[in-house]
Amino acid sequence: MAGMFITFEGGEGVGKSTQARLLADHLRAQGHDVVLTREPGGAPGAEQIRDLLVRGDPARWEPMSEALLHIAARVDHVAKTIQPALDRGAWVISDRFRDSTLVYQGLAQGVGRERIESLHALALGSPDHPDGLLPDLTFILDLPPAEGLLRAHSRQSQIDDQQTTKASNLAEDRYERMGDAFHHALSAAFQKLAIFYPERCHLIDASGDEHQVAQIILKQIASLKTRPVMDAGQG
Amino acid sequence: MAGMFITFEGGEGVGKSTQARLLADHLRAQGHDVVLTREPGGAPGAEQIRDLLVRGDPARWEPMSEALLHIAARVDHVAKTIQPALDRGAWVISDRFRDSTLVYQGLAQGVGRERIESLHALALGSPDHPDGLLPDLTFILDLPPAEGLLRAHSRQSQIDDQQTTKASNLAEDRYERMGDAFHHALSAAFQKLAIFYPERCHLIDASGDEHQVAQIILKQIASLKTRPVMDAGQG
Repeated sequence: MAGMFITFEGGEGVGKSTQARLLADHLRAQGHDVVLTREPGGAPGAEQIRDLLVRGDPARWEPMSEALLHIAARVDHVAKTIQPALDRGAWVISDRFRDSTLVYQGLAQGVGRERIESLHALALGSPDHPDGLLPDLTFILDLPPAEGLLRAHSRQSQIDDQQTTKASNLAEDRYERMGDAFHHALSAAFQKLAIFYPERCHLIDASGDEHQVAQIILKQIASLKTRPVMDAGQG
Repeated sequence: MAGMFITFEGGEGVGKSTQARLLADHLRAQGHDVVLTREPGGAPGAEQIRDLLVRGDPARWEPMSEALLHIAARVDHVAKTIQPALDRGAWVISDRFRDSTLVYQGLAQGVGRERIESLHALALGSPDHPDGLLPDLTFILDLPPAEGLLRAHSRQSQIDDQQTTKASNLAEDRYERMGDAFHHALSAAFQKLAIFYPERCHLIDASGDEHQVAQIILKQIASLKTRPVMDAGQG
């Protein structure tokens, strides 16, 4: 069968990268062609834009500039990485995609959900797909914000310990430093997302051990693979 | 009187920076508060985005990514530099503004005029000004493309001669290297702009000596200053 486009979403430290990797490993072990990617980034130009977003002062950008930077990177990511992989029948698994912009800038930073979706339609839309590319399936990993941030800080400390040069030491923790109120707003907004798009988005309790969470995700995919991809549609 | 927002537009090497500076000098000599600025850039974050746009491989960005990067920088520039200056009654003179995105990405790179204007409305619009901030007056400097590129190359050689480190030697010439057909398309598109917005945009023959061109510009401004700014409107 042709591959699917699967995204992992959620706040800081909920285990998106781990689950994306575990799923990619599982599918590769089954012999599938899998592209594991991430946002912001996932293509050379998009990774350069990433540097402007994930480091430095939390207040460095206007929320609208920040949304536009994410979408500029996404256009590059879709054109250079995601669409070519889907066109050749590969599975694409992305650690974050357009729902992150909807939740972070649209809902938690106040740009507005409709404005973000209009930007996505203008930036990624085509006559055949006026809304632009959407995932076939999105897993929203859900964890109390305090627990997620604790995990994220512990991961960042490990990275800092391993790195000694000043440049590489400039941590990718800009979003983690945005304050408790912001992280609670994120968590609530991601839960809402599963209500906005019930067919596409699946809320997953991420408080278990990583292999337990991976099993839940594999079961969801197996149940969806029994239906044509069309039915796993875009809500 | 309160200041006006004046922009200079046109292709590469037509003399925008020179004319913007001469106009700023003239207004300052009259005792006005003047902010001289430029795009892409004009605020700290916007200048960081500029680096992604003006250097490197002409093909490094999808035209849509490029448009979004310019508009992300513009949101920063308007919020941090232009709007605060206008609010305190200063004159703002910008070497390029939103018409450059309309012409470069919208017309010459094929994104489309309507799509760029919709992005501007979403990014810069407010309930009072749904289209977002527009200049009171725009001078489009017009020169045959070959002559402009010759001037631009000569300027870049002078900069290269003055600089010795590798980093600073990475020239800001990405747009200059986009090929003759592109530069002819730009020139034609800027001429069209004066037809789209006849009240706001004034096409200026930039082939004369810089002081002759400056005199033409001052005469235009003097004739407009005799009417309220409203009437110099946004066509």
